[in-house]
Amino acid sequence: MTAAWDTVAILGVGLIGGSIGLGLLERGLSRRVVGIGRRPVALRSALRRRAITASTTEIARGVADADLIVVCTPVDMVAEHVAAIRRVCRPDAIITDVGSTKASIVAAIADAGKAGSEPLHGQFLGSHPMAGSEKTGVRFADASLFQGRAVILTPTPDTPATVQRRLTRFWRSLGARVVALSPEEHDRSVAAISHLPHLVASALAASTDGGQLPLAGGGWRDTTRVAAGDAELWRQIFLDNRQALLPCLDRFLNKLDEFRVAVRDGDSAALRRLLEAGKEIRDAVGN
Amino acid sequence: MTAAWDTVAILGVGLIGGSIGLGLLERGLSRRVVGIGRRPVALRSALRRRAITASTTEIARGVADADLIVVCTPVDMVAEHVAAIRRVCRPDAIITDVGSTKASIVAAIADAGKAGSEPLHGQFLGSHPMAGSEKTGVRFADASLFQGRAVILTPTPDTPATVQRRLTRFWRSLGARVVALSPEEHDRSVAAISHLPHLVASALAASTDGGQLPLAGGGWRDTTRVAAGDAELWRQIFLDNRQALLPCLDRFLNKLDEFRVAVRDGDSAALRRLLEAGKEIRDAVGN
Repeated sequence: MTAAWDTVAILGVGLIGGSIGLGLLERGLSRRVVGIGRRPVALRSALRRRAITASTTEIARGVADADLIVVCTPVDMVAEHVAAIRRVCRPDAIITDVGSTKASIVAAIADAGKAGSEPLHGQFLGSHPMAGSEKTGVRFADASLFQGRAVILTPTPDTPATVQRRLTRFWRSLGARVVALSPEEHDRSVAAISHLPHLVASALAASTDGGQLPLAGGGWRDTTRVAAGDAELWRQIFLDNRQALLPCLDRFLNKLDEFRVAVRDGDSAALRRLLEAGKEIRDAVGN
Repeated sequence: MTAAWDTVAILGVGLIGGSIGLGLLERGLSRRVVGIGRRPVALRSALRRRAITASTTEIARGVADADLIVVCTPVDMVAEHVAAIRRVCRPDAIITDVGSTKASIVAAIADAGKAGSEPLHGQFLGSHPMAGSEKTGVRFADASLFQGRAVILTPTPDTPATVQRRLTRFWRSLGARVVALSPEEHDRSVAAISHLPHLVASALAASTDGGQLPLAGGGWRDTTRVAAGDAELWRQIFLDNRQALLPCLDRFLNKLDEFRVAVRDGDSAALRRLLEAGKEIRDAVGN
């Protein structure tokens, strides 16, 4: 059996990038995985974990031979990194990212493709794996991180069908389910299913009196868990997607007000109905 | 070494009661653990799991020999069950519960002690283990459920010091940390650290569009996890503790409004500050 990819380059070998590398190498899906990053210590750590087979701090060297390039840098860096990569990568390379917002990234990359005076190589198609953790760093990387999780691809009318097919196979080979949405649909969907939960968890943690933390049981721990995520990363995500996030937050506030009125009035039937509605939706997803 | 208890009776052998039984028997802390319940099938399941050593559907039979009786029934049944137990238990028995609210339960039990025409036996002191899960039933019982978790005891001025000492040792022997609060302090604290997170998780789940559930990743799953808990149980808890819950909810709503204004205005510095405050508090608790 030949590997699906000859060389995969990963820009940013943290939790997500490291998990992609581990998954590719453990499953024999790529012969080489080149990790590209600024910090030699992080690259050495990725090499030791066998999440990559080679490393470099230079983008041009790292992507030179790659048939697939995965950009795993913070959302406000993705468009710039993709532009830098497309000046130096193979003409037939496929480039994707793992950013949590898409409309602004995809538009910036399309604009760069039109405006530039230099020829740009390769084809970009955005990805967003709905997997991750409040943990950061390659030491938490996990070859099965994407198992059973959704990955959203965000094709535009300009995306070649072959690129979408190959990236779909790529994510499926790591165990994910693949869903295709337009960049704008993506941003609306993840505002509800990812960005709002993070905001709620963070607000709940921030509103907790420190003196009561020794009493925290499983409920508080679970409900606030993602609030431990990287504050700078989430600041960028919230800012970039604020137009989609705001109506989701208002929808949540309306539901919260229904709970509030029911608690205030001691309305037993309403409380039961609200709790059952929440349970029904939560039960539909499973663990 | 002799066991700490001769016979422990557990009324209601579900997740919590079953975990107490398992913990006692695995650690050799009690010679006998009698499970008392209405459903023979649940009792048989507890016997098979070795969470209890004997079972009965009759309270009088179940508690007759017990030096410790733990009432693990829903909050609106606890006072009634304690009253029934105190008519038939040993004079020196210690009785506790695991209910999530305390002021109303402790008051009802104290009133029953004064009002009754029959003599009541044993001493009651309320407990609330800050452990549990959205799962229910003895099949999820776990001898280490209380390991490292807080258990709140709610003594009153009438509670004998020896009873408090013995119950403190009991929970510590199951791995818990023990905190003593008045029933009213308990209710205020758990409103913030347990009841509010459940309400928030439930409202978040209930406000999620079903069409987006296939995209749910770890963030949505963690933040809404406890919403899968028993709706009837939580209805009782919210109703019973609504006076303490309402100000906690309003405090959370104020924090949420700070997030909302920062998102609406694209206020980068405020978002960063809010996210960092949430992270700092969450990091203080750990996994």
